[in-house]
Amino acid sequence: MREVAVLGIGQTRVDEHWDKSLRELAGDAILAALQDAGLANVDGLYVGNMMSSSANRQQHLGAYIADWVGLRYAEGLHIESACSSGGAAFRAAIMAVASGELESAIAVGVEKMTDSPGPEITVQLATASDADWEADQGLSFVAINALVMQRYMHEYGWKHDDFANFSLNAHANGANNPNARFQKPISLKAYQEAPMVAEPINVMDASPMGDGAAAAVIVPAQVLLPSSKRPSIHILASSGATDTISVHNRRQPTWLRAAEISAQKAYRQAGITPADVDLFEVHDAFTIMAALSLEATGFAERGQAPRLALDGQINPKGRIPIATLGGLKARGHPVGATGMYQIVEVVQQLRGEAGMAQIEGARIGMAQNIGGSGSNIITHILGVR
Amino acid sequence: MREVAVLGIGQTRVDEHWDKSLRELAGDAILAALQDAGLANVDGLYVGNMMSSSANRQQHLGAYIADWVGLRYAEGLHIESACSSGGAAFRAAIMAVASGELESAIAVGVEKMTDSPGPEITVQLATASDADWEADQGLSFVAINALVMQRYMHEYGWKHDDFANFSLNAHANGANNPNARFQKPISLKAYQEAPMVAEPINVMDASPMGDGAAAAVIVPAQVLLPSSKRPSIHILASSGATDTISVHNRRQPTWLRAAEISAQKAYRQAGITPADVDLFEVHDAFTIMAALSLEATGFAERGQAPRLALDGQINPKGRIPIATLGGLKARGHPVGATGMYQIVEVVQQLRGEAGMAQIEGARIGMAQNIGGSGSNIITHILGVR
Repeated sequence: MREVAVLGIGQTRVDEHWDKSLRELAGDAILAALQDAGLANVDGLYVGNMMSSSANRQQHLGAYIADWVGLRYAEGLHIESACSSGGAAFRAAIMAVASGELESAIAVGVEKMTDSPGPEITVQLATASDADWEADQGLSFVAINALVMQRYMHEYGWKHDDFANFSLNAHANGANNPNARFQKPISLKAYQEAPMVAEPINVMDASPMGDGAAAAVIVPAQVLLPSSKRPSIHILASSGATDTISVHNRRQPTWLRAAEISAQKAYRQAGITPADVDLFEVHDAFTIMAALSLEATGFAERGQAPRLALDGQINPKGRIPIATLGGLKARGHPVGATGMYQIVEVVQQLRGEAGMAQIEGARIGMAQNIGGSGSNIITHILGVR
Repeated sequence: MREVAVLGIGQTRVDEHWDKSLRELAGDAILAALQDAGLANVDGLYVGNMMSSSANRQQHLGAYIADWVGLRYAEGLHIESACSSGGAAFRAAIMAVASGELESAIAVGVEKMTDSPGPEITVQLATASDADWEADQGLSFVAINALVMQRYMHEYGWKHDDFANFSLNAHANGANNPNARFQKPISLKAYQEAPMVAEPINVMDASPMGDGAAAAVIVPAQVLLPSSKRPSIHILASSGATDTISVHNRRQPTWLRAAEISAQKAYRQAGITPADVDLFEVHDAFTIMAALSLEATGFAERGQAPRLALDGQINPKGRIPIATLGGLKARGHPVGATGMYQIVEVVQQLRGEAGMAQIEGARIGMAQNIGGSGSNIITHILGVR
């Protein structure tokens, strides 16, 4: 298998884009990525998206978006794995280029949630969980996460306030990202007094919906020009793993076994340990998911991630900076696009192009994209070569 | 890139499966394929499906189905490209194994159309076309194909009767397939007098909806045991290409340029010409699509596919047997599953396990899966080694 590298990135701001359609958003990110890569064309397009079937009454996004951006006759596929659709599209594009089938590919994650009519969005988000055994019991997606958070607090003795820094850090970092949905810091008081969504998850524990698209161009590493002024960003690892889709079917509902397996595979591929990772784009759809992800990937002991947050070790100058450009919480969570925002942000950091949000000396960055309540985990590790 | 082979296949009958859920159908095909392969587990699952979001209120099929069949912690993804979702899932699985990322994978196509409430199915099928420029004009999916067929008949001077043998051949072949939706031959009179759907497409020009699942296990070719009593079925070629999603945006609406490109790529990969192909599973969602596919892939001159059909050259003993186990027309067209039925049927033929439908001496088989009205084409060529 040949080595693969990221040649270009592009993104739109995460926002309520009332003036843009699904394909316009995807197109903006793709054309920016192609321009950044200095390419006019690629062999294949991999689109990560979760809910266009319902929100936009449009499927078949591979052909649909290839057509829109002028990638005439290129291969085009749509990949879906709920909230990890973006990371999954990136992984599929990597395998296409690594296998030698394609010489270049674009992965784009796109979601246009504001097109979804009223409560339909809650129904669609619930399609990430088990229709028979979770959704049909009346559990919304946030309700499932709330049950996990309650159980976690009960098992390990944490209070709601102990999760505050996951939210505060994300919002403080989002203030440095012009593409973030929310660009101002929040106070501890704001966290404590936020309206409840599903106890114990309040508005400041939950990531916001939004519209957005992010894209990356990948090529075989050997085509990178040694004369380029930019650092070469290589894919050091790419892995996926699933777990039971219903949380109640897991032996331990407060342990993300698939995230652990996915991360272990990735560390082995990259030949590194968690100590080598300079920044980690976690899937902080809810503060509890950030905590569970940090534990499953080996950055915190079991049950101890809130301690890492309380000590500020997840902040930009901490031991393992997370959500460095706002994370799902402040940059926003246009579900199928999120995984590609994570990749684009890791590349920004490794290139030293993260502006005010720059993590000094970042050489190795990791992104973990979570579909469902921990049931489909895509992990990528990128590095400067 | 390492060579890849099919180790096992499985399928359910295409039918109205009121007693089975989406995951039960997929599970039946997967477990049959694993048993056929003699494997208890695989590294990854690739699910082709188009409309579970609407029909089953369930997305995230990679994790959902991996969970159901006990592929605990395996990788799992859902691939969608409208009616070519099955072929696309097979292609993604091939790239995963060919790249060396996985040592084994299952591709499954599954669709449970009868769960879709009433007219919603027509709305969902229209998501394969362009929401803004086709569906919003009131064009159903069959209406788009009817316009193409009208134009084709006008340009080349064919009458409706000239397409009859596409339907008659499919139904005659379906009579020999115990997994087909319809298992009896039809008469020319039945073709001529069938109720109109969208002129000139009548019920006997159109494939039926249905529920079903088909699956194949793939592995690196080098792991096949030379001592096996069965012929080894190798993937000689796998390719994809897209075209404009709106038919009116094409230079020639009656020519499937993406099918031509996809086939040419496949012939190059396999090192063969159309003359070497012993059977061809075409995407005969409508008789006009069978005709256009035969022309784009080089089996008939432009505008002359009805002649091939009239001369019986598409029949089991003809020059290029098509729809050998009934095709979409008689085996049935559970949209996201269809591409995998094509693959499974090619394997049945190459193994000599097609029973009454067996094509004598079949050594090379081709399958072409079409998404939308010719906008996303996946071609596979399989051969006995």
